[in-house]
Amino acid sequence: MIAVDWGTSSLRAYRLGEDGNVVDKRSTQRGILTVQDGRFAEALEGQIGDWLDTGEAPVVMSGMIGSRQGWKEAPYAQCPAGLSEIAAAMVRVEWKGHCAWIAPGLTCRDESGVPDVMRGEEVQILGALDKLTEDEAWICLPGTHSKWVQVQAQRIIRFATYMTGEVFAVMKAHSILGRMMSDGELDLRAFDGGLNRARDNGGLLHHLFGARTRGLFGELDDKESAGYLSGLLIGHELRSVPRQSGVVYVLGAEALAQLYVHALGTQGYEPRVLDPDAVVTGLSRLASLARV
Amino acid sequence: MIAVDWGTSSLRAYRLGEDGNVVDKRSTQRGILTVQDGRFAEALEGQIGDWLDTGEAPVVMSGMIGSRQGWKEAPYAQCPAGLSEIAAAMVRVEWKGHCAWIAPGLTCRDESGVPDVMRGEEVQILGALDKLTEDEAWICLPGTHSKWVQVQAQRIIRFATYMTGEVFAVMKAHSILGRMMSDGELDLRAFDGGLNRARDNGGLLHHLFGARTRGLFGELDDKESAGYLSGLLIGHELRSVPRQSGVVYVLGAEALAQLYVHALGTQGYEPRVLDPDAVVTGLSRLASLARV
Repeated sequence: MIAVDWGTSSLRAYRLGEDGNVVDKRSTQRGILTVQDGRFAEALEGQIGDWLDTGEAPVVMSGMIGSRQGWKEAPYAQCPAGLSEIAAAMVRVEWKGHCAWIAPGLTCRDESGVPDVMRGEEVQILGALDKLTEDEAWICLPGTHSKWVQVQAQRIIRFATYMTGEVFAVMKAHSILGRMMSDGELDLRAFDGGLNRARDNGGLLHHLFGARTRGLFGELDDKESAGYLSGLLIGHELRSVPRQSGVVYVLGAEALAQLYVHALGTQGYEPRVLDPDAVVTGLSRLASLARV
Repeated sequence: MIAVDWGTSSLRAYRLGEDGNVVDKRSTQRGILTVQDGRFAEALEGQIGDWLDTGEAPVVMSGMIGSRQGWKEAPYAQCPAGLSEIAAAMVRVEWKGHCAWIAPGLTCRDESGVPDVMRGEEVQILGALDKLTEDEAWICLPGTHSKWVQVQAQRIIRFATYMTGEVFAVMKAHSILGRMMSDGELDLRAFDGGLNRARDNGGLLHHLFGARTRGLFGELDDKESAGYLSGLLIGHELRSVPRQSGVVYVLGAEALAQLYVHALGTQGYEPRVLDPDAVVTGLSRLASLARV
């Protein structure tokens, strides 16, 4: 089969053999935002046309390619949902003798009835389910929009999104806080300072201003400020999530996952890392149902 | 005397008669960021040279003109501070036979030892003190960086800053939330929805994402989204401030002050509006001590 993780800013394609192992992979910046006039078929052929031409392998895709801005909208499936519900909500696209399945996103509503959504993460989770040793588990997927996901009996029960990564990026690039920040590796001691600060009274909007005043008073230098801000924001995320202790699985790109593992460890959790390539396994599981 | 409120992006000058009434005023966009190579004297003369030339009137200034980026740094005075402490910390600048006093900012530290600062607001408060009917009072100064200030016996005891206005502006202009927002008048019903949402569990980073999902699900349109975001942020500010009920004085530019009065009213406070031109009275009080 061919598995395609097609997001806003990147496209990752994997060719799997009969045994399910990856025999080839390609990663490009050909995200859906770079595709003009809905020419997704041409964009896909541009990347993996040679794979498509070799046979009848099913193609399964996940990510923003199934959004309203993508190839064909795959409406959000409702939580709770597992492999069968997600597979059943896939949509099919066809072109020039080829076809592909697109996985839907997931949605749920919190106790106040406010909706939440994910698109792509649900397939990563499908691919990681067999690594969870408990019947009930929490998975944290850090990122621009961090997700905290509760899984029970192989199904996604509920989840919540935190704009942690985007608030960090936007405040660093565009707010007064960014003027006192240099780029480069995150200062882990300052990060821990931000994490601890997040546990104080005062709220995030007040704590953010402290990143500036501590800089003004020489308590944070330009190298430390970004680490402090990151710690503040991740600390406020941890303070807000439904899971406040115990085992949390972390599924995400390596550097960010390591930062979350560190943060979770200092805040009394037991973090466990999941394979960041779980999306391939998830797409492969979906492919087995799409074939029917 | 001549009172000058000289901030980052604007300069407001007031000429006062012997009786303390404003006889003339000028407002320009000649904020300190527009002044090149430290030529503040020339910039001030360009705006009110004719006033300066007519006599011996003392000039007292407040705002970012006293910051490290301003004419001459007037180091922050420590809380608690009232008229005498602030007057004693003024610094003097002289040029071509003229002179002017620059008010200092104020600083305090919270229970965790994190510093906070204000520059300009302390003079507004000095000008409003005689309007407070209680010996102890809380003043809210809404803005890019909202301030909540506790006053007792005519002195500023402590305060805390919230980046509410800047986070709103930055998220609207630069985050994914802004893509679903149109400009124009704030939708007050959506604003109230955001205010109420801020009282739910989940934290600000999660609530922010709800502004997007509610848009995706057609529960907020482009006109309503900015109001909802504003309500969310002001709601989180109110949730975080030390004062949770009772009388709160509001001191700020009219439209924003009215929005805060509305928010405070719906959240169980008793808001009372102070004259936004209190800075003139404050500078005038400082002038009376600077003359000595």
